[in-house]
Amino acid sequence: MTKYVYDFAEGSKDMKDLLGGKGANLAEMTVLGLPVPPGFVITTQACTTYLRTGELPQELAAEVEEHLLALEAAMGKGLGDADDPLLVSVRSGGKFSMPGMMDTVLNIGLNDVSVHGLAKQSGSARFAWDSYRRLVQMFGKTVLGVKGEPFDSAFEEAKRAKGTRDDLQLEASDLEELVGRFQGIVRDHTGEPFPQDPRAQLELAIRAVFASWNTERAKLYRRQERISGDLGTAVSVCSMVFGNLGMDSGTGVAFTRDPGSGAQGVYGDYLQNAQGEDVVAGIRNTLPLQQLEELDKRSYDELMQTMATLERHYRDLCDIEFTIERGKLWMLQTRVGKRTAGAAFRIATQLVDEDLIGEDEALLRVTGAQLAQLMFPRFGSTKDAALLTTGMGASPGAAVGKVVFDSATAVEWQARGEDVILVRRETNPDDLSGMIASAGILTSRGGKTSHAAVVARGMGKTCVCGAEELEVDVHGRTLHAPDGSQITEGEVLSIDGTTGAVYRGAVAVTPSPVVQYFEGELAPEDGDDLVQAVHRLFVHADARRRLGVRTNADTPSDSERARRFGAQGIGLCRTEHMFLGDRRQLVEDLVLADSEKAQSDALAALLPLQREDFVGILRAMDGLPVTVRLLDPPLHEFLPDLVELQVEIAVAEATDGEVDPRRRKLLEAVSRLHESNPMIGLRGVRLGLVIPGLFAVQVRALAEAAAALRGEGRDPRPEVMVPLVSTVQELEIVREEAEQILAAVAAETGQDVATLIGTMIEIPRAALTSGSIAGAADFFSFGTNDLTQMGYGFSRDDVEASFFARYLDLGVFGVSPFESIDEAGIGRLVRISVEEGRAAKPDLKIGVCGEHGGDPASVHFFHAAGLDYVSCSPFRVPVARLEAGRAALLQDAEPPLGDTR
Amino acid sequence: MTKYVYDFAEGSKDMKDLLGGKGANLAEMTVLGLPVPPGFVITTQACTTYLRTGELPQELAAEVEEHLLALEAAMGKGLGDADDPLLVSVRSGGKFSMPGMMDTVLNIGLNDVSVHGLAKQSGSARFAWDSYRRLVQMFGKTVLGVKGEPFDSAFEEAKRAKGTRDDLQLEASDLEELVGRFQGIVRDHTGEPFPQDPRAQLELAIRAVFASWNTERAKLYRRQERISGDLGTAVSVCSMVFGNLGMDSGTGVAFTRDPGSGAQGVYGDYLQNAQGEDVVAGIRNTLPLQQLEELDKRSYDELMQTMATLERHYRDLCDIEFTIERGKLWMLQTRVGKRTAGAAFRIATQLVDEDLIGEDEALLRVTGAQLAQLMFPRFGSTKDAALLTTGMGASPGAAVGKVVFDSATAVEWQARGEDVILVRRETNPDDLSGMIASAGILTSRGGKTSHAAVVARGMGKTCVCGAEELEVDVHGRTLHAPDGSQITEGEVLSIDGTTGAVYRGAVAVTPSPVVQYFEGELAPEDGDDLVQAVHRLFVHADARRRLGVRTNADTPSDSERARRFGAQGIGLCRTEHMFLGDRRQLVEDLVLADSEKAQSDALAALLPLQREDFVGILRAMDGLPVTVRLLDPPLHEFLPDLVELQVEIAVAEATDGEVDPRRRKLLEAVSRLHESNPMIGLRGVRLGLVIPGLFAVQVRALAEAAAALRGEGRDPRPEVMVPLVSTVQELEIVREEAEQILAAVAAETGQDVATLIGTMIEIPRAALTSGSIAGAADFFSFGTNDLTQMGYGFSRDDVEASFFARYLDLGVFGVSPFESIDEAGIGRLVRISVEEGRAAKPDLKIGVCGEHGGDPASVHFFHAAGLDYVSCSPFRVPVARLEAGRAALLQDAEPPLGDTR
Repeated sequence: MTKYVYDFAEGSKDMKDLLGGKGANLAEMTVLGLPVPPGFVITTQACTTYLRTGELPQELAAEVEEHLLALEAAMGKGLGDADDPLLVSVRSGGKFSMPGMMDTVLNIGLNDVSVHGLAKQSGSARFAWDSYRRLVQMFGKTVLGVKGEPFDSAFEEAKRAKGTRDDLQLEASDLEELVGRFQGIVRDHTGEPFPQDPRAQLELAIRAVFASWNTERAKLYRRQERISGDLGTAVSVCSMVFGNLGMDSGTGVAFTRDPGSGAQGVYGDYLQNAQGEDVVAGIRNTLPLQQLEELDKRSYDELMQTMATLERHYRDLCDIEFTIERGKLWMLQTRVGKRTAGAAFRIATQLVDEDLIGEDEALLRVTGAQLAQLMFPRFGSTKDAALLTTGMGASPGAAVGKVVFDSATAVEWQARGEDVILVRRETNPDDLSGMIASAGILTSRGGKTSHAAVVARGMGKTCVCGAEELEVDVHGRTLHAPDGSQITEGEVLSIDGTTGAVYRGAVAVTPSPVVQYFEGELAPEDGDDLVQAVHRLFVHADARRRLGVRTNADTPSDSERARRFGAQGIGLCRTEHMFLGDRRQLVEDLVLADSEKAQSDALAALLPLQREDFVGILRAMDGLPVTVRLLDPPLHEFLPDLVELQVEIAVAEATDGEVDPRRRKLLEAVSRLHESNPMIGLRGVRLGLVIPGLFAVQVRALAEAAAALRGEGRDPRPEVMVPLVSTVQELEIVREEAEQILAAVAAETGQDVATLIGTMIEIPRAALTSGSIAGAADFFSFGTNDLTQMGYGFSRDDVEASFFARYLDLGVFGVSPFESIDEAGIGRLVRISVEEGRAAKPDLKIGVCGEHGGDPASVHFFHAAGLDYVSCSPFRVPVARLEAGRAALLQDAEPPLGDTR
Repeated sequence: MTKYVYDFAEGSKDMKDLLGGKGANLAEMTVLGLPVPPGFVITTQACTTYLRTGELPQELAAEVEEHLLALEAAMGKGLGDADDPLLVSVRSGGKFSMPGMMDTVLNIGLNDVSVHGLAKQSGSARFAWDSYRRLVQMFGKTVLGVKGEPFDSAFEEAKRAKGTRDDLQLEASDLEELVGRFQGIVRDHTGEPFPQDPRAQLELAIRAVFASWNTERAKLYRRQERISGDLGTAVSVCSMVFGNLGMDSGTGVAFTRDPGSGAQGVYGDYLQNAQGEDVVAGIRNTLPLQQLEELDKRSYDELMQTMATLERHYRDLCDIEFTIERGKLWMLQTRVGKRTAGAAFRIATQLVDEDLIGEDEALLRVTGAQLAQLMFPRFGSTKDAALLTTGMGASPGAAVGKVVFDSATAVEWQARGEDVILVRRETNPDDLSGMIASAGILTSRGGKTSHAAVVARGMGKTCVCGAEELEVDVHGRTLHAPDGSQITEGEVLSIDGTTGAVYRGAVAVTPSPVVQYFEGELAPEDGDDLVQAVHRLFVHADARRRLGVRTNADTPSDSERARRFGAQGIGLCRTEHMFLGDRRQLVEDLVLADSEKAQSDALAALLPLQREDFVGILRAMDGLPVTVRLLDPPLHEFLPDLVELQVEIAVAEATDGEVDPRRRKLLEAVSRLHESNPMIGLRGVRLGLVIPGLFAVQVRALAEAAAALRGEGRDPRPEVMVPLVSTVQELEIVREEAEQILAAVAAETGQDVATLIGTMIEIPRAALTSGSIAGAADFFSFGTNDLTQMGYGFSRDDVEASFFARYLDLGVFGVSPFESIDEAGIGRLVRISVEEGRAAKPDLKIGVCGEHGGDPASVHFFHAAGLDYVSCSPFRVPVARLEAGRAALLQDAEPPLGDTR
């Protein structure tokens, strides 16, 4: 028979599925012999049955009664007993903590009779009536669905009548009267009196917790966080203890180490004569935990003992909530505590040194996301900085610049070399150019899924949003600060995209010591404990990881930096940047060529330039593979903008009538090349097949560069990658031509120019026909940006701005699929491709060079999918190395998971 | 042991894989006892071994020798015998007939000695030397790879020396001398003398045939036709017979019925004292076959007998090649003959009436492509029409209009109500607007894969291309005809896209009787035998098919026509056309709305208009399902063009400075909505989720329309289809809102408005996650146009013009994937979706509404994939019905294939 109720003593921390996180940890503490108020947990299974059938499981009532009787016996009190009532709290708690669900009902068991028993036992009628008042209000709102407003009004009126604004001025008789009025409110709104039967109160509360699993807000949260709707929530029923029974009582929160810095030693706050909700409400200032030692040495010592036990037991930083009731310590909650990124690295290595965990586990305790945070520049000391306000940290980093209020100004000022901060009430797609031009973005409205936040994160641009205390006057070009002062256009602000802080004036930016470490500017021996921790964990991550990590780099300097950051080659060297600047002229010549001769002349002029590009990059990556992608974007990207040209010529015609003939010819060409949807138009291999000689020049340039370096005794390892292939025929044709060129260059130079020839897999059809494409490829490299664009049928440029914010709000996405790879759809294409590509050619080398290559969740996916390497931007290389190590530990059979000491 | 050589008597017509088409049919005739010159076939297996290893199979030489000895014995001659030489022909022939491969070498066995034997046996030295001359020339070119030009020059020179231009004027001695010169050419070019050993000649010829499998042209053809490169070719070795040994000899081709009309009775041509190549060269006029009866009654009777035997045996129209050598009939080739579309339908039903085949097989003998040809309008009598020239029929139909030479003129004249024919040397993407505006397109250059041909077929526009005799003078606005006359702009031409004929002046267009039949204007009883045949085959196709056939229709009149054509409902009713015309104003209002009120006012104004649209369509399809797709295209499609607006305002500012404020506001809105890639931008369900109320108005309009009709006692069957879904969450959100509206309308009207709610599957990710999407869908409908665009990552609008022609030329595609569904890639998405959608929801209804729904090959694919219906444009409905019937016969276990009498 299914068991639906577990006494705390029957559970353990490993039973989160069944008991929820809260319940499982209460059980664990109970089993450890720590002072937890007795209680029991109703399982998530009871919840799912209830949700499926609309009824509580038949056996549940009897099981609850049995555990309740045991609880009454243990406490020596009866639930709602007239003389010495047992009171209980009812709390929801699923496997994952989840806002939007009903949280807590305290003081269940009070009624018109037992309130007197509580008064007698506590010696305080005021305490008893206040507790009853809280029950009616909380129960009315959360269990019975009465709106909060009438309670609040009645409460305010009671205080008004008493001539006070302080709750504490209300006496027992005032509160007793208020209970009567609250009960009236319940009766008015539900048509029923407030339930007096304590067992009925309990059952109603349990049902309400179960039902709250399916509130709109809870469903939305689950959609966003991809939490299954089938899990259900558990219900903890716990005997009440009170920290508000006098100055020998109190309540507090504590951490077993400093969660901010990772420093060893406990850390917390204590509030005398108070309950948890009072701490949150901030009525009085809390005391540092250390002061408890003076107030109540016995409880303090027990607490220290308990925390030491918990840390040893959980082998990690724990955070706890506790209450002292008349000198007796009670543990109300514990869990592994959240911490800052720096603390995570420090604590992980501390725990190794303390012999609590092994190095594998230490590596699992830190994340790439934390590392990325540590790599952003930060403000140095902000002690003397003038904090203006704090908004939401929407996209991390530290940015300093002059305030501008519109995109045009941002673009203009940036062009003349100024750093600017774009300040807007909120942004929309019109602001894109300004966002690109700015060092940072500040908005007064919108949350973490607002347009500004989504787009800034996409760009990796520092952003603070929803700084609601600021009033943005775009027309007056002024920002009104909460202190009444004003900031006009051109004044300098500093914004912190991690904390959301906005400072007036320039705050000095400190380089990240972690970046200095990777750059070789700071050594572990230099004494920075964060650098030491990072170093140790990286040595271990590199030893464990199976995925190679390459970089996406198009210049020698990027290549060199990436190499310092640990890149094992280049996975994507884009060549389009090599067609910009002065070379646009050559592309124009190519496009305007009216004969084959003119066309091949234009291409020939590109050859020596491309060769020098490649010499530089191959030299920087000597001995490591360099994957060069043949030209990918449509040609018109190198030409003047169609609209601008059209307007220019129309205006010239309408005014003086003089039009430059080359501009007119260019307009013709640009019109001819214009596409409605260039992203899915004539680009990549299509361009290579339509413009004879284009790819040939690139392949020859690469081969000649390799030959030259080999002639110098170096070890270049070029690879040619064909973009946008959707059929094996395309690849076969390019491959045949490339092989001829390689052979020709080898013959001309007498050098070995061995070059792998492979393809991007970035078109869904390519993934779906990988079995045949593998026949013509030495390697695959997933272009997951395009694969996501094509697989979802949306263009990143267009849709991030127009509907991603709405989609994140609606929970259509939990996270943008451009940030983390969508495993169900796009990831499925990757898996199909790997499987069928390798089946056709077992030694096929497979990597990924889309931006997902540096995203932690995606790195785990690529590891699982069996790729050989990921490639990402230089700054993401360390993130990928760390996550590749973690992925190996989490997914591979060897070494086993769990305690790895 | 593998058998590599088969005597003709050992094979059969079912051995095409091994013996090739030609060889298998020669074997079949031999076994039937028909007079085939003895010979044998070397199998495709010998070829594939040769291609794989570069060597002929070891056992082959002995096998060939054995069969050759048998052949010599049978013929009583020896190969290359000095006195009475046996000569043989060597022909290639794979499973599929394939241009680009070496075709034939005749007269093998002749050398400097045996030529005298042949002269003696034939009684004609001239014949013998001419035969030898032909051998050296043919063998030199095709087997030894000597260029043709030196032979041709030598031949011309010999005639010049003789003072004649007629080959026949050359005498035996001239030809003998020519043989010497030809042998010299061979020696000069190969460094070896012309091979004198007849067996060496034979082996070299066999090797050459095998090697010709891999010529570039053959490989290209196979790529285009999707023929596997692994099949290889067979080689037929056949003893020579001669139709040029005098007036009692001759050669001919014949059909067992008229392949043009399908009329019963033999049909053919005969040429006395000639060989097959002379017939092709057209030196003398051929005689109608019937005259052979007078010339040689015995041979004629035998031929008639033979043809009757063949037709009864093959149970189909056969075409044959025969030779009469001195009064003796020899069959050289037969195969099931090609025929026109009309003939195919007539012959199929004739053969049923003659009890040669059953109705199932008759249905398999006709195709949707043939039916489509019969549905194009045709020119009536062209007897009196002035034929100007004949180009290639590149896109069928009959078009009449005034000649224009550029797109601007085409657009302008069409706008004033004129039909125009766009005439260009060749077209390029700049000509798109002109092609759209024209009734037909005529080019003087380019083949069936030229830009003009590809784009015109995509548009369903009549096109003749490559009319090389015409000279197009665009600047002079004149077309020079081959007869020296000129056609100036504005003169009328008539072009036939099926035959390629170009007529001067207007030729009357006759409606298709097949269309008249479907329209109900012609009944089978009216006596047209084509209509009768079509009717009979359609009755059978409808009885056999399992696929339903619906139509894509947006108006009541299209719906009615499609219903007459046999559509069983609407599979795609687009609603965007309902937002054009006068209603653009409302869309502008919606976009310019600066408050929620203004937005909902604009939507409310659309409601009654949409409702009337739906009433009309639901009424026309009463009792049948009508699938309405919610708004799909991006909003800016309903607004003025960005560039035009920008130019308009820039010019106004630059001149008088007066700008209409509404235009300026519109420019702001259009700029905001502008997308770089609208095809993969804010459209479909994304728009529905971003603009609150938009989909709601459409669903309400549909529900109210259905309620109104039900109130009239009708039986409307509306279905709501959500476009561009890529995640189940999108569909869930829309579905929830739609269900609420349906319930509300049902409550308001008291009518049943039961409506299925389903989704397009047109995004790769939707196909890949169909298992979860099915949970929120009553039906799937594949949008294979978008699925192809996204799956291949190309936008049809852009790429058909820019690189499809090149891709078809290169053989990257055999056929445009927009024409026939790409089974390997896009089709795989369809199969995954069907399988996983049905696994999740077994009663899921699944159809397709992309244009592929009316494409024959695609219909077979959709049948195999297990769809419930296809939906296509009204004119394609009959094609889909026919092919659905054929697909059922070809693919389903019951009834069995083969002879179904």
